[in-house]
Amino acid sequence: MSKHQVRFRVRYAETDQMGVVHHANYLVWMEVGRVELVRQRGFNYKDLEHEAGLFLSVVEVHCRYIYPARYDDEINVETKLLRANARLMEFGYDIRSASPDRLLATGVTKHVWLGRDMRPARLPERYRGVLSLD
Amino acid sequence: MSKHQVRFRVRYAETDQMGVVHHANYLVWMEVGRVELVRQRGFNYKDLEHEAGLFLSVVEVHCRYIYPARYDDEINVETKLLRANARLMEFGYDIRSASPDRLLATGVTKHVWLGRDMRPARLPERYRGVLSLD
Amino acid sequence: MSKHQVRFRVRYAETDQMGVVHHANYLVWMEVGRVELVRQRGFNYKDLEHEAGLFLSVVEVHCRYIYPARYDDEINVETKLLRANARLMEFGYDIRSASPDRLLATGVTKHVWLGRDMRPARLPERYRGVLSLD
Amino acid sequence: MSKHQVRFRVRYAETDQMGVVHHANYLVWMEVGRVELVRQRGFNYKDLEHEAGLFLSVVEVHCRYIYPARYDDEINVETKLLRANARLMEFGYDIRSASPDRLLATGVTKHVWLGRDMRPARLPERYRGVLSLD
Repeated sequence: MSKHQVRFRVRYAETDQMGVVHHANYLVWMEVGRVELVRQRGFNYKDLEHEAGLFLSVVEVHCRYIYPARYDDEINVETKLLRANARLMEFGYDIRSASPDRLLATGVTKHVWLGRDMRPARLPERYRGVLSLD
Repeated sequence: MSKHQVRFRVRYAETDQMGVVHHANYLVWMEVGRVELVRQRGFNYKDLEHEAGLFLSVVEVHCRYIYPARYDDEINVETKLLRANARLMEFGYDIRSASPDRLLATGVTKHVWLGRDMRPARLPERYRGVLSLD
Repeated sequence: MSKHQVRFRVRYAETDQMGVVHHANYLVWMEVGRVELVRQRGFNYKDLEHEAGLFLSVVEVHCRYIYPARYDDEINVETKLLRANARLMEFGYDIRSASPDRLLATGVTKHVWLGRDMRPARLPERYRGVLSLD
Repeated sequence: MSKHQVRFRVRYAETDQMGVVHHANYLVWMEVGRVELVRQRGFNYKDLEHEAGLFLSVVEVHCRYIYPARYDDEINVETKLLRANARLMEFGYDIRSASPDRLLATGVTKHVWLGRDMRPARLPERYRGVLSLD
C-alpha cells in the first residue's frame, strides 16, 4: 500500500491572532494532498479539468483538530483514497508536523465528479486508473 | 427561540477557477456567524480574548455542501448554539443564498475554551450568559 | 462629486499572529470597494463578466499602510475612479476604521479590460457609463 | 551577489473565477520569499518574533502584474534586499513561472521593525547580519 505525501512550510499569512494556523487552511492543505495523490497516479487534475471538462466537487468535509500548527512548521500531508467509483471519491488525510513528528489533524473529504454544466458526471473509462484504491 | 443571522455578499477573491466559492471559505463564514451570535447575546468575542484571555478553539468541523455559492450572491448565515457548558461549545449553521432563497450548506463546529497558555480552561462565571441554549 | 463607500467588519480569519489584519487582505477590501463603485453606477461586474465576457484584470497595485486594522473593527472603504477610458481603469482607495474614525491605508489599482481569450479588449459602447469620472 | 529563491506550486485555492491566481496571493508569495531570504542569512524570522519581540511590519507594497499565474504552475520567487538599516528594510521580488520560464510579476515591499508594543524599534546589534545588502 502506497502512501501519498506532500510537504511544505506553514506561511505567515496562514496564522491568525491566536498565534496558530487558522482552521480553514487545513482544508486548503487537504486539497494540496489529494492533488498530489492524483499526480502520483499518473494523472494531472489540471488536465482532467481542461481536457475532460471534469471537476472534482467537494460535497462533504470533516476535520478533527488535535494539535495546533504554527508558523514555519514543516507540514506533511498524507492522503489516502478511501472509496472510489465512476461517480464519487472519498479521501482520508493525516496532517502531521515534521519536527517533532506529531499528528496535528485528521480529515475526510467526499467528492462527486461534475461536468462543465455543473451536473453530476461519470469519470470516463480512460481516467479510471485514478480510482484504484490504495 | 431566537435566530442569529448575518448577511454579506460573496467576494470575488472567495471564488476559484471552478467558477464558484472555494469550499474552505464556508468555514470563514461560519466563524462570522458564531461571532455575531456571541455579539447578539451581549458579549464581544474580541473582549473575551483581550480581557479574559480566553480563546474559543476549534476542535472539529463538519460541512455538507449542497448548492454552490457564486460571486456577488447575498449570503445569509443562520447560527444556533447546539450545546454549551463551561468547557465546550457546539454550533450549528445553515448557509443560505438570499435570492433565490436556497440552502447552500449546513455545518457543525465544536470548540473548547483555551487560556493564554493554550491549555483547556473553564469559562468564568461572569461570561456564562453566552452559554444559554437557543 | 459622489463618494463610493462600503462597510464591513474585519473577520477573525483576516488577522495574523502579529495580532492585526494581514496586509494582503487590503487588496481584497479594495476589490470589494471597486465592485460597489461599479454597482452604484448601475452596472454589475458579474454581468460584465457573464454577458460581455469582459474581465477587469489588475495590472498594478500600490498600497501604503498607515495604521493597523484589527479584528472586529468596522472598516469603511472609499473608492474613487481616477482615470478611465475604453481600455483601462484606475481606482484610488481610502481604507478607514469607523470608530475611532482613522485612515488605515491608501491604495491605487490599475486595470485593463480583457476578453474571454485573456487579450486586451475595448469596453463596448453600452457599458461606457461605468467610466464617467467622479 | 547571491540570489534568494524559493519554489512552490500554485494551489487550487489561490485561483479565482477568472481562471488565474487572484492578485492578492502575490503578496503572500513575496512574504514567503523574504522569509526564505532571512533564513538563508542564518536567521529565523520566527525566532526574531519570539525571542527579540520584533515584528517586520509592512508599510508599503507595490506590485506589477505581467503575466497571469495559473493553477499547478511551479512558481519561483527571487528576493533581493534593496535597502536596510536598523529601522527599515526594503525588498525587491521577481515572481517567475518555471516552465516555461517567464516573468509573471515584480514587486517591492517596505518594512519597519516594530516592538511588542507595536511602536517602531531598532534592530539589536546581534541581528544586524540580516541587513547586509546583496
